[in-house]
Amino acid sequence: MSGKQRAKIPEPAIRRLSFYRRHLADLAALGVATISSREIAQVYGLEPFQVRKDLSYFGSFGRRGRGYPVRTLLRRLERILGLDRRWRIALVGAGNIGMALFRYAEYRRQGFEIAAVFDADPRKIGTRLEHGVTVQPMERIGAAVAELGIRIGIVAVPPGAAQQAAEALAAAGIKAILSFPGGQVLVPKDVALRRVNLEADLEALSYFLANK
Amino acid sequence: MSGKQRAKIPEPAIRRLSFYRRHLADLAALGVATISSREIAQVYGLEPFQVRKDLSYFGSFGRRGRGYPVRTLLRRLERILGLDRRWRIALVGAGNIGMALFRYAEYRRQGFEIAAVFDADPRKIGTRLEHGVTVQPMERIGAAVAELGIRIGIVAVPPGAAQQAAEALAAAGIKAILSFPGGQVLVPKDVALRRVNLEADLEALSYFLANK
Repeated sequence: MSGKQRAKIPEPAIRRLSFYRRHLADLAALGVATISSREIAQVYGLEPFQVRKDLSYFGSFGRRGRGYPVRTLLRRLERILGLDRRWRIALVGAGNIGMALFRYAEYRRQGFEIAAVFDADPRKIGTRLEHGVTVQPMERIGAAVAELGIRIGIVAVPPGAAQQAAEALAAAGIKAILSFPGGQVLVPKDVALRRVNLEADLEALSYFLANK
Repeated sequence: MSGKQRAKIPEPAIRRLSFYRRHLADLAALGVATISSREIAQVYGLEPFQVRKDLSYFGSFGRRGRGYPVRTLLRRLERILGLDRRWRIALVGAGNIGMALFRYAEYRRQGFEIAAVFDADPRKIGTRLEHGVTVQPMERIGAAVAELGIRIGIVAVPPGAAQQAAEALAAAGIKAILSFPGGQVLVPKDVALRRVNLEADLEALSYFLANK
């Protein structure tokens, strides 16, 4: 998950940059011109030095004591996060979670578009979804990824089918996969895999409740 | 997210414990008696010392060179993660994401049960769901949490409604909240908040693709 031209940036920092970006977009929409690291830090319960350090990975922004120019910082963060372009996504799994993701409008505004949906269940294949997308058989992944210029894959299948889905995406040349099912998924070394692990999130909360 | 009786355990370690637990449950089901830190590490692409360190937060397990006894380690991890009991959950938001979560069977097996569902939309109130659950109005959160012994809240509402939903859960005495909408949600200091932030996950992937 690191850039080659830059110092290795820890994943939690990248995640915080996403939060800063969202806050800066709100501020820009409100016409706010500058913001201090202290103000950004307060929103997220962080220390100001943490914010300054996170932003320093990408060179120097703003001037000490003057704060950061909101629009400039926003545009730099968008470019850093790859949000200055559109990303097409292949979704594997047209079940409850998959369809909720497909219909979740929030990330479309950030430039992420689920351009193709695949499922192993013959009864689902051919189902017409919104945005002109139709559920396709798994065998179509390679062709669709090439035709549509898809770069990101989402796996939303039952746990037992996750490995096969991830392999099919990797075989199609996908280098970035977001996976929903729990359990183990192995991908080639050059593929970035992120897990949205609801069980692990719930377990972190039950850990908190059981140990507080 | 820290226990008071124990050393503060970093969140990534807690997350890894969730993965180890799942793997150990699979091994126990297969009848495997012992496992080494090296074997656990290989499954997740970690270094063995990382696994040993994660497990050492909870006292000493197993013996050097002999591996860990699978069933004992599994039971200890379950107890540590609070999975030796059932947790009742209040879900706020009966939209696409909320309903997908409600129907997602995977975490039920771990002892997490969505026992009540709330929505602000009058048209949804009274809708009968599976498992004998009916969508209730937001005003019922306090009473339902008390009646059903609910300890965990899930927020799955549009971003603009997230703060109000989190506050309603906190006011009802909920100390652990899992939140889906992006953007800022503030909760009292004694409430643990975890965000499942799909946009941030996608942005981490676009960052990877844009910078590799």
